[in-house]
Amino acid sequence: MTDSVVVREVGMRDGLQSIGSLMSTDDKKEWIERSVAAGLREMEVCSFVPEKYLPQFKDAAEVASYAGGRAGLVGVALVPNLRGARRALESGIDKIVCITSATESFSRANLRRSKADSLAEINEIVALRDQVAASGRRVLIQVGISVCFGCPFEGSVDDDAVCSAAQASAAAGADEIGLADTAGYGEPQQVGRIFRRLASELPHVPLAAHFHDTRGLGLANVLAALQAGVRSFDASLAGLGGCPNSPGATGNVATEDLVFMLEAMGFDTGIDLEQLLDVRRFLSAALPDVQMAGHIAAVGLPKGFIRQ
Amino acid sequence: MTDSVVVREVGMRDGLQSIGSLMSTDDKKEWIERSVAAGLREMEVCSFVPEKYLPQFKDAAEVASYAGGRAGLVGVALVPNLRGARRALESGIDKIVCITSATESFSRANLRRSKADSLAEINEIVALRDQVAASGRRVLIQVGISVCFGCPFEGSVDDDAVCSAAQASAAAGADEIGLADTAGYGEPQQVGRIFRRLASELPHVPLAAHFHDTRGLGLANVLAALQAGVRSFDASLAGLGGCPNSPGATGNVATEDLVFMLEAMGFDTGIDLEQLLDVRRFLSAALPDVQMAGHIAAVGLPKGFIRQ
Repeated sequence: MTDSVVVREVGMRDGLQSIGSLMSTDDKKEWIERSVAAGLREMEVCSFVPEKYLPQFKDAAEVASYAGGRAGLVGVALVPNLRGARRALESGIDKIVCITSATESFSRANLRRSKADSLAEINEIVALRDQVAASGRRVLIQVGISVCFGCPFEGSVDDDAVCSAAQASAAAGADEIGLADTAGYGEPQQVGRIFRRLASELPHVPLAAHFHDTRGLGLANVLAALQAGVRSFDASLAGLGGCPNSPGATGNVATEDLVFMLEAMGFDTGIDLEQLLDVRRFLSAALPDVQMAGHIAAVGLPKGFIRQ
Repeated sequence: MTDSVVVREVGMRDGLQSIGSLMSTDDKKEWIERSVAAGLREMEVCSFVPEKYLPQFKDAAEVASYAGGRAGLVGVALVPNLRGARRALESGIDKIVCITSATESFSRANLRRSKADSLAEINEIVALRDQVAASGRRVLIQVGISVCFGCPFEGSVDDDAVCSAAQASAAAGADEIGLADTAGYGEPQQVGRIFRRLASELPHVPLAAHFHDTRGLGLANVLAALQAGVRSFDASLAGLGGCPNSPGATGNVATEDLVFMLEAMGFDTGIDLEQLLDVRRFLSAALPDVQMAGHIAAVGLPKGFIRQ
């Protein structure tokens, strides 16, 4: 396997939203600069939620504008609703992530609305994207589907529920679809099975995977998704993160461990691992009260490790 | 996949040899009893090394005798040489593990002899096994090959070196062959490639895998080996362990996380996960000064989790 794989850094959004410490706008900008220098090509940098819910993102417009204008980087913002999408599009961001869920219970807990209502709102956001496109600016929409592999409220999730949410997202006009293991319930058989099915049902829609490492299966699930053809993975530097509505959920797979696995396997991520570990040291210094996870930073690269 | 998979608990050997705390003989026996009650069918319980090197195993004969006589359990002892093999066979153990290495440097550091000399000694141990068999008692020999996927002294290891060590082990009369990622260098492509090749070259010799989780790829490597047909995996409860000659190496894959992955995937391990987590609590109480790793114990099983 010598394909390129996109590693999407989501620590600045998914990570920061789950920790107590606020990060300054300057530190966020420096994190972006250092990441681009290390070779990262896509970063989810904020969530356009009301400040009263997540004060971490009160500077969302400024950070999104900074990332969206940065050469060599696809800047991404999460939007919970149409109002957030308007703000995101005004900021000059390159890509927005809209959310729906594979289960009703999670949709109501996370977004305070039904699955059907979340899809209706995604249709409105797509219409807004198309208005912006008519004025000459192309902004991509990823629909992220939460709890695809298990739900903290409902337990196991039927493959059909995931695939019908993906079908609806594609019908709404998603440019790409991300399946999220929000609470770390997924296992490799299931991950491979669902991604293979979707690749067959939606051959023209790029698929992405977002795995939390809650139960230690994050990289095994990445392997299963890779084998099913997925070439875009979310990850969070130092495993920063979690999900406020998923009790016990720890962070995403650690970016540095994911990049190590991919590069060791012969995939091209475009990322310099030594430089990425420098970015992690910056992150650790910027968030001194936050526990950093991940293996590679603790033990180092293998002797003689070079990209395959 | 509904096959059975053997999870070999090696924490009592590989784990205990790497920690400072001594475990009492009574605690070792209780760990064995509790493990059997939880459904574990195979445990590596000691190493027959001189007491001056590893005082942890001064009770090796007593513990091996206890495990070897236990109904429902395959008791296993590691032996570094012919003298150790004699002691192991006298103890009444069911299976012995002899060691060779994929690299000369590691062989000399770990066993103080060349690869050729280690293989010569394995031939003598096999002859001893055959003498014992003639008297009516069948003892199995696994040859464990160290540093198959990378060496802390030599860096990357050629597939041919691994396969020729495995060929030599089979020729010597090994009942099974274990490939060890002693220092956590392995990646899934390599793991799958080597196990597929060996399954083709040695179709009649059962293969086993021993992965350290040093760089977080332990379970991804298990997945790759499963896909290549391997059905026997070493693991260490709470990830206890490491390797004294591999600087920075952390423990084996955590037994409880491995069992969770296998059962979630639909494999039958015969192990009750809730009971296994009880054994882990016993281990944690028995070794209060030792850091316990593993994800499942920290966050619990997923809501509604049942064996597939």
